[in-house]
Amino acid sequence: MALHIIGIGLGDENGLTLSQIDTLKKCSKVFLEDYTNVVHINEKNFEKITGKKIKKVGRDFVEDSEKLVSSAKNEEIALLVSGDPLSATTHIEFLLDGKKQNIEVKVYSNASALTAVGLAGLSLYKFGATASVPNPEENFKPESFYEIFEKNQRVGLHTLFLIDPNEKNGKKLSLKEALEWLKKIDSKKKKLITSKTKIIACSNLGREKQKIQVGSFEEIKKQELEHPICFIIPGELNFKEEEALKIYS
Amino acid sequence: MALHIIGIGLGDENGLTLSQIDTLKKCSKVFLEDYTNVVHINEKNFEKITGKKIKKVGRDFVEDSEKLVSSAKNEEIALLVSGDPLSATTHIEFLLDGKKQNIEVKVYSNASALTAVGLAGLSLYKFGATASVPNPEENFKPESFYEIFEKNQRVGLHTLFLIDPNEKNGKKLSLKEALEWLKKIDSKKKKLITSKTKIIACSNLGREKQKIQVGSFEEIKKQELEHPICFIIPGELNFKEEEALKIYS
Repeated sequence: MALHIIGIGLGDENGLTLSQIDTLKKCSKVFLEDYTNVVHINEKNFEKITGKKIKKVGRDFVEDSEKLVSSAKNEEIALLVSGDPLSATTHIEFLLDGKKQNIEVKVYSNASALTAVGLAGLSLYKFGATASVPNPEENFKPESFYEIFEKNQRVGLHTLFLIDPNEKNGKKLSLKEALEWLKKIDSKKKKLITSKTKIIACSNLGREKQKIQVGSFEEIKKQELEHPICFIIPGELNFKEEEALKIYS
Repeated sequence: MALHIIGIGLGDENGLTLSQIDTLKKCSKVFLEDYTNVVHINEKNFEKITGKKIKKVGRDFVEDSEKLVSSAKNEEIALLVSGDPLSATTHIEFLLDGKKQNIEVKVYSNASALTAVGLAGLSLYKFGATASVPNPEENFKPESFYEIFEKNQRVGLHTLFLIDPNEKNGKKLSLKEALEWLKKIDSKKKKLITSKTKIIACSNLGREKQKIQVGSFEEIKKQELEHPICFIIPGELNFKEEEALKIYS
């Protein structure tokens, strides 16, 4: 018996791998976590592929990791997670709880925005730490994502900014708002960003509707992109990267 | 007509996704690039799954990207690549050539060691640039991978070192040799590594034989791990990461 944490990659149920499908077929319960990212699973097709029904679960359910792990003591349980399970969130907690409770927790990798972003033309080897831009609330506007950008810039590394895909007060954070917020913090701090700063914005990476835009800060601010959105502010660009970015101009 | 660059992830043919299999079924030629990483595809099973035979191709074939792209003018061609196609090598060249020749090049993401390494317990958001440790040759012992490590350390970021899986002079670079080489450069330069420096070594990530070892530099140097091997030297560890590393001790 085990808890199987299954990455579904960036797309829909057709992004499942053969070995993931084999595992799902032997599970007695299949949960889908859809709060950390936008997930596009067609439940009917999923059932046709695996013979299983999906139960959608929210943050509270998943964050009670101890309970979820212990439920796998006597049956095979699957938790479907967007992207690569250990890339963007704190699912490592399941492994810790598994060790404590002596219950097997298996992780099944899949495509992640963190590497799919290579499509934009920059070397993934030259990215620094990733910055998450949260959807701010009235009294909670953290600026810590700026520190990550500043550190990466200091050593010439590219920064990937992931924009929170969740709604707050009935509204998602747009690319324009995220960029303006970043600029506002920057103007109080290191002044690294100008209207000409090169920005690479990506939407729906790894999906049919995938879109990549390259331009100046002012140009990109005018783009209306659909979630999930991420953008990159490059560090030092080599010749190859400069050339590659031209694919999108 | 198009050139389809298909990431096969970290494992064997069972790591193919349903949409990748759909694409492969309509291709008239399927090439497998197996020089940038260790690939474990069972050709018989692959044929059973997709109905296609694989033609293994070497570096010269793949690096002649212009020719490969132009061959997709009149037929559907697939190139299978280990991991996520744009994560570790220079396959962006295909996109550039596709644009120049006005031939469609499509990329199909899959699992990559760059994110699967999250299994080790460190936050992927806190990794800096990736360092590749080449298998050195008599007259070619580059030290540039050290600069990457040094920059990451300067701003507190973790460093992932990928060890070249290829043979040079009939021999692969072992974990021990890679660590000793790194230490030798370090002792000439910044002296950031001691015998107690924490090292996380991973072997066969995402595969059945996956192994993760956490210990001091001296302890890990004694581990004999099978290729593909990577290791991490952490930057600043937070409380959660310290706890997570204990899974492997």
